[in-house]
Parts: sequence; C-alpha cells; structure tokens
Amino acid sequence: MIKQLTITTPGQGLHEFTDRLDALVREAGVREGLCTLFIQHTSASLLIQENADASAKRDLEQWLNRLVKENDPLYTHQNEGPDDMPGHIKSALTATQLSIPVTGGRLALGAWQGVYLWEHRHRGGARRIVVHLGE
Amino acid sequence: MIKQLTITTPGQGLHEFTDRLDALVREAGVREGLCTLFIQHTSASLLIQENADASAKRDLEQWLNRLVKENDPLYTHQNEGPDDMPGHIKSALTATQLSIPVTGGRLALGAWQGVYLWEHRHRGGARRIVVHLGE
Amino acid sequence: MIKQLTITTPGQGLHEFTDRLDALVREAGVREGLCTLFIQHTSASLLIQENADASAKRDLEQWLNRLVKENDPLYTHQNEGPDDMPGHIKSALTATQLSIPVTGGRLALGAWQGVYLWEHRHRGGARRIVVHLGE
Repeated sequence: MIKQLTITTPGQGLHEFTDRLDALVREAGVREGLCTLFIQHTSASLLIQENADASAKRDLEQWLNRLVKENDPLYTHQNEGPDDMPGHIKSALTATQLSIPVTGGRLALGAWQGVYLWEHRHRGGARRIVVHLGE
Repeated sequence: MIKQLTITTPGQGLHEFTDRLDALVREAGVREGLCTLFIQHTSASLLIQENADASAKRDLEQWLNRLVKENDPLYTHQNEGPDDMPGHIKSALTATQLSIPVTGGRLALGAWQGVYLWEHRHRGGARRIVVHLGE
Repeated sequence: MIKQLTITTPGQGLHEFTDRLDALVREAGVREGLCTLFIQHTSASLLIQENADASAKRDLEQWLNRLVKENDPLYTHQNEGPDDMPGHIKSALTATQLSIPVTGGRLALGAWQGVYLWEHRHRGGARRIVVHLGE
C-alpha cells in the first residue's frame, strides 16, 4: 500500500512527525509489517533521533552546520543561494529513506526515538514523503 | 515476520553479528526475500563493512572519533556524559536501519561484507534490534 | 523477486543509473511496491541526488574528498593503496542500501532526483547491486 505525507516546514532544522506517521499506520490497519518512508527531495532528509530533549536536536543542527558550511569557496553550484549546495551535501550524509518495522499495529520505535524531517533550506516549504506499507 | 535480536556490546566500537543474523534468517526458513534491521537506539548504529581486516575497523572508529569530538564547546546537551552528544551525531551520520536481500536462504552479502553494530557509548550495553523478514 | 544489476564505473565519482533501474522495474512488471537496492561492496555507495546540474555532483565529490583525505597519518590499513581506507570511511558515511517505492509501474522519485552509484576507488570497476522487488 502506498500513501503520501506532506510535511510543511517553517525553515531549517529538525521537525518531528512521529504522531502523523503513527496515525497513518493506524488508519491503514497494518498490524505487522514494514513502513518505508522516502523523501522526494535532495535538500531535506529523514532521521530517527532522541525526542526527549530539545538541546540534543539543536546541538545536532549546529554541529552539521559547522561541518557543512555555507559560502565554501569549494562550491561552484550556487544557483539557488548559499544554502543550496550545503543542502545537497547534508542530504548525501543523512537518510533519504527509512524503513521502520510495525508490530501490534504500531511503529516499533525505541523508547526515546522519534521520526524527523530534517529541513536543510532556510525557507523550508512543503516536503513530500512517499510511504510504503508492506507485509 | 518480526524477530528480535539483542546484541550486548562491551563498549565503543564495531561489533560484528553476521553469524547471528544468518542463523536467524536460516531458522525463519525464508528462501528469498528482504531482511530489514532496525536498531531501537539513538547512540548506536548499523553498518555493513569489510570483515577481512581488523585494521580497517579500527581506522574507521578512530576517524569518526576525530570528526565527532567529545567535549566540543558547541554542545549544550551533556546530560549523560561526554559521549552523549557525539553518540547522537554519529548515529545521525550512519544507519539506524539496513535492508539486506535474501537469496537461496542466505543474506546476499558481498564476499567481504559483514554486518556490524556500531556502539557509540563508552560503556556499551544491551542493544535491541528489530528484524523484519518479508517476501 | 530478486534481480541483479552490474554497473561498470570508469573511476571515482557519481555514476547515474536511473534509466537502467527504471527499465528493470518496468520489465519486472511491478505496478505498486518497493524496490530495494543493495550494493555488495564496501568501497562504493548508493545515492539519491539532483540530476539536473553536473556542478552539484562535482561539488559533492570534491567536498567529500576534502573531508575524507587520502594519506591521512591516522590510517594503519593501506593494503590496497591511498584510496582504500577513504573508500571504507565514505561508504560508512553514505548508503549501502536504498529502498524506493514503486507507483504506477515506475520508481516514485521526486522531479529532480536520480539514482547514483558513488564509486570511491580511483580505478573503478564492475560493481554488483542486488535488487529486491516486493509488494
């Protein structure tokens, strides 16, 4: 079964959507199986991270922003602004796709895990995720 | 079909569990399909790497430890010690989930590939992996 | 259903094979499902990236080559030359496996997304990818 999710982000950073994904799995009526997420963009990623503490989330963003700098003299591709090439690099270093087992009708996440969209562009926008539910 | 694996690690580093995963696939009786691993933690990862030479494994750990430093002044999240935030960052840069095809009743790994749990905390511990076996 | 793809690369860099994968999915006759790619090597990766502009591709390669240097004094594993250990590290930081939903008999890629093999060795070679097609 294929479903669509659109997550609208206000800008760069980690945006949790565990609740929306849980609801989608529940509505689909899958009891046991595999839920695969695929993001149809190359300047945003999917991430499983700790959802208990906002500081871990902020540190993660800051660390990656320092590793993948804007206005790096190495870049020749700058068509869409200073966050264009960093977005592609961040996307290559993180996940475009995630598969999460489903048991008892729920995502089999660990106690502290949440599902996030990691937006790499400053302006954010509507991000399309294709969701596959299989047995 | 959903299975559970618990891998107990003595501490930071790469811990191979190819044999245990192979045994699980064999016992499940799957001849052809897809084996998906999902680790229920945000301070350990899953990795496919070369299993022929221990030096490759050590260099990989050392390299990542140098990239993702402990006691980085950037960190505000230090609740669980100096390896807390590095663990989250390493987890974000590597895989939380892996899918491996199964053919002829075995994992379709390349000649030199092994399946590893990459423990990012110093103390290690019991790490839970949910395994989905599908056709 | 399991299929095999062999991609022969002339050397280091990003090699797109979206058309070959699309053809494989079409020939398999899958209308809706999940296509999982698994690369049987630890010195090459799989990547979804922008396929519109060659400069993004080049910048991405250059950036990763600067992050993961050859002849780093940290390396003890150099059996197969200066690109040996960097290949393993790059492989650990990027994807060994990718799952892409299939809808209407086609890969559900975003408008600008292409599927790439990222070769990390200078000499390149014949790279084997196992493809699983499931419902």
